[in-house]
Amino acid sequence: MDGFQFAGISCGIKKNKKKKDLAVITCPGGGKVVGVFTQNQVKAAPVLICQERIKSGRFQALLINSGSANACTGSAGHKDALKTTKYLAKHLAVPEEEVYVCSTGKIGMRLPMEKITSGIDKAVKKLSEKNFEAASEAIMTTDQFPKIMVMELKIQGKKVQVWGMAKGAGMIEPNMATMLAYLGTNLDLPLSKMKSLFKDAVEKSFNRISVDGDQSTNDSAFFMSSQKLKIKGLKESELKSFAKILTEICQNLAEKMVQDGEGATKVVDISVSGARSDNSAKNIAYSVGRSLLVKTAFFGEDPNWGRILAAIGYSGETIDPLKIDIYFDKVKLFRSGQGLGVNAEAKAHKVMKNSQFKVTIHLGLGKGKFSLLTSDLTYDYVKLNSEYST
Amino acid sequence: MDGFQFAGISCGIKKNKKKKDLAVITCPGGGKVVGVFTQNQVKAAPVLICQERIKSGRFQALLINSGSANACTGSAGHKDALKTTKYLAKHLAVPEEEVYVCSTGKIGMRLPMEKITSGIDKAVKKLSEKNFEAASEAIMTTDQFPKIMVMELKIQGKKVQVWGMAKGAGMIEPNMATMLAYLGTNLDLPLSKMKSLFKDAVEKSFNRISVDGDQSTNDSAFFMSSQKLKIKGLKESELKSFAKILTEICQNLAEKMVQDGEGATKVVDISVSGARSDNSAKNIAYSVGRSLLVKTAFFGEDPNWGRILAAIGYSGETIDPLKIDIYFDKVKLFRSGQGLGVNAEAKAHKVMKNSQFKVTIHLGLGKGKFSLLTSDLTYDYVKLNSEYST
Repeated sequence: MDGFQFAGISCGIKKNKKKKDLAVITCPGGGKVVGVFTQNQVKAAPVLICQERIKSGRFQALLINSGSANACTGSAGHKDALKTTKYLAKHLAVPEEEVYVCSTGKIGMRLPMEKITSGIDKAVKKLSEKNFEAASEAIMTTDQFPKIMVMELKIQGKKVQVWGMAKGAGMIEPNMATMLAYLGTNLDLPLSKMKSLFKDAVEKSFNRISVDGDQSTNDSAFFMSSQKLKIKGLKESELKSFAKILTEICQNLAEKMVQDGEGATKVVDISVSGARSDNSAKNIAYSVGRSLLVKTAFFGEDPNWGRILAAIGYSGETIDPLKIDIYFDKVKLFRSGQGLGVNAEAKAHKVMKNSQFKVTIHLGLGKGKFSLLTSDLTYDYVKLNSEYST
Repeated sequence: MDGFQFAGISCGIKKNKKKKDLAVITCPGGGKVVGVFTQNQVKAAPVLICQERIKSGRFQALLINSGSANACTGSAGHKDALKTTKYLAKHLAVPEEEVYVCSTGKIGMRLPMEKITSGIDKAVKKLSEKNFEAASEAIMTTDQFPKIMVMELKIQGKKVQVWGMAKGAGMIEPNMATMLAYLGTNLDLPLSKMKSLFKDAVEKSFNRISVDGDQSTNDSAFFMSSQKLKIKGLKESELKSFAKILTEICQNLAEKMVQDGEGATKVVDISVSGARSDNSAKNIAYSVGRSLLVKTAFFGEDPNWGRILAAIGYSGETIDPLKIDIYFDKVKLFRSGQGLGVNAEAKAHKVMKNSQFKVTIHLGLGKGKFSLLTSDLTYDYVKLNSEYST
């Protein structure tokens, strides 16, 4: 990736020593950065540090560890996080204030500082443009596969790169309380433009997924520029093309997170239209997408529109059951307050055998719409989360 | 039960013909009734009918079927429900408007009318004071055990009876969107007094439990008086004693519902204190009590206070992590923003081995408090709900 270097190594934080658990991303010569952070009021130490430092917009390096979230570790944990950035900054001979830190994993555990500092020693030696994938592996926790995507486009004959990597498989919920995601580009853009483009991309991707309704204490998304590619007089249409691929990468990473949702076997697009407003559509989509009864029915491949109706009914939004239509992909299951019978249900059951399908809910009230991705709720979700920490 | 008659029979709605699925409760000579109903906007036909009829406060009989919820069945379903009350009213020679109807079971299925009318023929013949338990069995769906309680107290030397029966094991959520519950007494009380006593009892019981966050389309709670016992000049202290046992019965039934929560193995009291207000405490208690990560940790007997902290943090209420204390029964696990270490966790793990325990969250901000009962999230919840309907 033009202007960036990566490293992903194992330093022994995770019990399984073969698993990578420390990543470093640098931008030799310095770059720009913007970010969005968890809205959970209980914020981990690294989140508080990054929120403060990112105001400058300057970027040199980022340290990410998996295995320990360094959340709820008090002032000692805060000092630990600061020490790690100081240590990495010294290694790289860059200003400490331009070094960022993220942690993900179990809450409440102090960082194993010796492991991390010796891990930094090791990682710094491995920094290279090529270790992109190794870094993406090192940020994984309960993830079953790394989540990366790279795209390119030509602007004024020049090769613009946009890349992304993310982790997240549980505690997936909107409001940026969801995951770790790192996006990067070689294109130099004004900081304010980076902010608005990233905000928009996040809104259309990471803020539209739900796995279990739990918002984490640590999650953060960064968008960095290495400033290697400077294009004068960027046109509005060129910016649009850039925004499009940035959003596409974010959406792809978000979809991968739902696919990898803890124990998930299905990715379901809940698409609400005909609502009184977009916001009303959003509330209804989340009410359906979060319902445990709906999510277990997805797992059971049971076209149980009654549970969907019930979740619409308790969303808090004013609706008229007699105006509601429900489709599973193209199969109409429910019209004007009534189910369409066993044949329709049999067809919908077939649709549900796919690992990905769409539930369309048309409310017949207005022009508001919203869609989100959710997963099914499975035995494995319970298994993963009841056995996770102790 | 003084002044009431019951019947509980099988009429073939449920696939397993040995399982009872039709109950009748009557009050020969007529009585009084008050009720509260689901706040789900998608209301089943019987709910709509009862909400209209209950305005009179007059009670003759109640018909309850399990196996089919008669919800989302359109105007045909509405007519079906009316027909069943008409049929029962004719049998009993009472005004149709004083006959109530409840249905519980699968959404979207029409009532099997022939089975129900011949079931009514059969049930009417069995009406007796003694068939209280049979009726409580006939209202069960996924319940593993019937939920009943009877208490007596003496007022002015007279025997006041209060009884209750309930069903509910899934779709358990507050706001009376939760279950079917029937409370009765022989004591004659003014209708307005019945209303206020019942509202208060429901608020302290059925509105403080959560199993899966799903509110149903059908759930209703009735409080009936056979008016058999008339006591003149009831004192305030006597009414208080009456209110106490009414509340106690409702709380006992509510607790049984959580115990029987689909797949549940633990009943956990989430008790929040030191909040800015009672309402703030309530929001935090529900945020914790509904969290899938917290509920799976309960199942795994994992004293994962980090997940509890995270759920407090995303409740939407303003909190200060550094002021929070968390206890599992009497074991202090977390103080002033930090966990208290592996010894405390080992002790809390022992507490969690019990089928019932208490999580106390003290916020250190004010005097607001609220407590609710929740259950753990288990493999069996997923099993029951992914295999339920088709």
